[in-house]
Amino acid sequence: MTISAMDLDVKAAAMVQGLLDRKTKPTGSLGRLEELAVRLAAITGRTDGAFPMKAVLIAVGDHGIARKGVSLYPPEVTPQMVLNFLSGGAAINVLARQAGARVVVADAGVNTEGFPDHPSLLKLSLGRGTADFSQGPAMSRQDAELCVRRGREAVAALAGHGLDLLAIGEMGIGNTTPSAALCACLLELEPEVVTGRGTGLDAAAWQRKVDVVRAALELNAPDKDDAMDCLAKVGGFEIGLLAGAILEAAERRIPVVLDGFITGAAALLAWKLEPKSAAFMIASHQSQELGHRHLLERLGLRPYLNLDLRLGEGSGAALFLPLVDAAGAILKEMATFESAGVTDK
Amino acid sequence: MTISAMDLDVKAAAMVQGLLDRKTKPTGSLGRLEELAVRLAAITGRTDGAFPMKAVLIAVGDHGIARKGVSLYPPEVTPQMVLNFLSGGAAINVLARQAGARVVVADAGVNTEGFPDHPSLLKLSLGRGTADFSQGPAMSRQDAELCVRRGREAVAALAGHGLDLLAIGEMGIGNTTPSAALCACLLELEPEVVTGRGTGLDAAAWQRKVDVVRAALELNAPDKDDAMDCLAKVGGFEIGLLAGAILEAAERRIPVVLDGFITGAAALLAWKLEPKSAAFMIASHQSQELGHRHLLERLGLRPYLNLDLRLGEGSGAALFLPLVDAAGAILKEMATFESAGVTDK
Repeated sequence: MTISAMDLDVKAAAMVQGLLDRKTKPTGSLGRLEELAVRLAAITGRTDGAFPMKAVLIAVGDHGIARKGVSLYPPEVTPQMVLNFLSGGAAINVLARQAGARVVVADAGVNTEGFPDHPSLLKLSLGRGTADFSQGPAMSRQDAELCVRRGREAVAALAGHGLDLLAIGEMGIGNTTPSAALCACLLELEPEVVTGRGTGLDAAAWQRKVDVVRAALELNAPDKDDAMDCLAKVGGFEIGLLAGAILEAAERRIPVVLDGFITGAAALLAWKLEPKSAAFMIASHQSQELGHRHLLERLGLRPYLNLDLRLGEGSGAALFLPLVDAAGAILKEMATFESAGVTDK
Repeated sequence: MTISAMDLDVKAAAMVQGLLDRKTKPTGSLGRLEELAVRLAAITGRTDGAFPMKAVLIAVGDHGIARKGVSLYPPEVTPQMVLNFLSGGAAINVLARQAGARVVVADAGVNTEGFPDHPSLLKLSLGRGTADFSQGPAMSRQDAELCVRRGREAVAALAGHGLDLLAIGEMGIGNTTPSAALCACLLELEPEVVTGRGTGLDAAAWQRKVDVVRAALELNAPDKDDAMDCLAKVGGFEIGLLAGAILEAAERRIPVVLDGFITGAAALLAWKLEPKSAAFMIASHQSQELGHRHLLERLGLRPYLNLDLRLGEGSGAALFLPLVDAAGAILKEMATFESAGVTDK
């Protein structure tokens, strides 16, 4: 990737800001909706604010560490939820439909004998889940590189079909644990600062999860300056796949809407691999997971929605999408002081 | 108004919570989107989550105090913006269209020789703007009562056409100043704590605005325990109209989505007149105006969007509406653990 390909388009951004300043409203009064319009122009180089083809890419994977009691739900829920995504009944299906986005599911490594073919399913499995990283690395470095590459290829394929905006989500029983481990490692923070309650652990179970994360970091000793090493040692297939998806989208100047903590861990990996990629990311919401706030700060991102979500799947990203359409409609449809005959200050 | 008419429907709320708990997601993981669905059921007594007829009621008025240099914009912008609303070119028109809501404009007292008839315009004018409250009361007590009554009548008429959800907005050059005065009075806070920069005042102009508010409160000495006295002495026609609109909606169990600081001042009046009405209000966003945070705290409301808006018109309320539809779609469309064959914890 060339560095210039990841520079923002300041000219397009300035054009959009100029257009917004002529609209019938006090300068800057639409606040972060204006910033969003400007940011999207800077990312895409386009000034029309239109994003007709939006997709939510849900990467799914299983985790060896899930057998260590870090989640309230049993691992068999992971493949069950893939089928739920494919039949359209999960929260993300409902929310993506509302937002006019399509849902694409990537099996990054689910513990199943195989899913039926489905037009919305990308079969990119690296295996039937990662190894238990309390015993050794979650995956080989080769597999880490492979899952990042598969994420890139998935986005390249979507881009070939005209993708305008990528929202990312994930599912995988136990995956807040590798996310916390990645966060602790890449942000150099203590495990208790970045480990949350996942789908609803009580205090004792939370403490066990913190201990699991701490022990895994001690055992595997990932190199914080080597994102691929962190991914291999304490990551997950779906997390690596999403990191690749982000990098590919950034390189193609496609905005990436993050969801919560796990997509945030993927974003941290992408940022570590290519710091300029952070400029192509948008933080949709502030999740309830402890580490989410820290990682968004490091990425320089500020979330838009305050919904206390802790579901994942891309649910918060999908809930954010109407703001993208609203920003575009403001650009396209709103009158200027001149056209409306309103006196400017 | 009977007190029982303003009690929330706990049975409907519990039914919706029960339905949400069977959906394929960790319990409570959709956070405040679930709370919203439950709250809407408690307000309406309905459990279908459907709000097909949404309207944004924009109350507009002029202010004698605007001649005291409290705004960057001249007062003639008020009637100009009414025409902009009616021709569909303002921000709120764009955002309401995006949200599938209709826009209704109420002339509560604009300084004009008259607007053309228009199907979206309610001619409820109390006069050509309030009196300058730095010289004496903004309006008579009779007019204060009258504008509240007209707000009630406006919502009663909309309810007659099947209104399911009311979003409120406002416009009126200078109207953050009466809002700050009402806020200072009803919340018993110092003027500098609740006076903001409106459409963009600099530090010196902000200080003059604070002084104007302080002097007006000293001169008029509104009785903080008498909302109608506060409205008459330091309020505005559009603010009183919106207070009435809120009360009528609450009484009819129609949810009221607030916008920013000025609609918040109207909400404070409504709450002071009938404390139970606060349970029927929803805070859409956190505005940049200083006083907004204080008044939302007093009303016990927590905003959903963090957009640094300072436009008014109902813009933040309209941007929030997709979350209402999303909450309804989750109720209606999402699979249950049983229907999807997913293992519950």
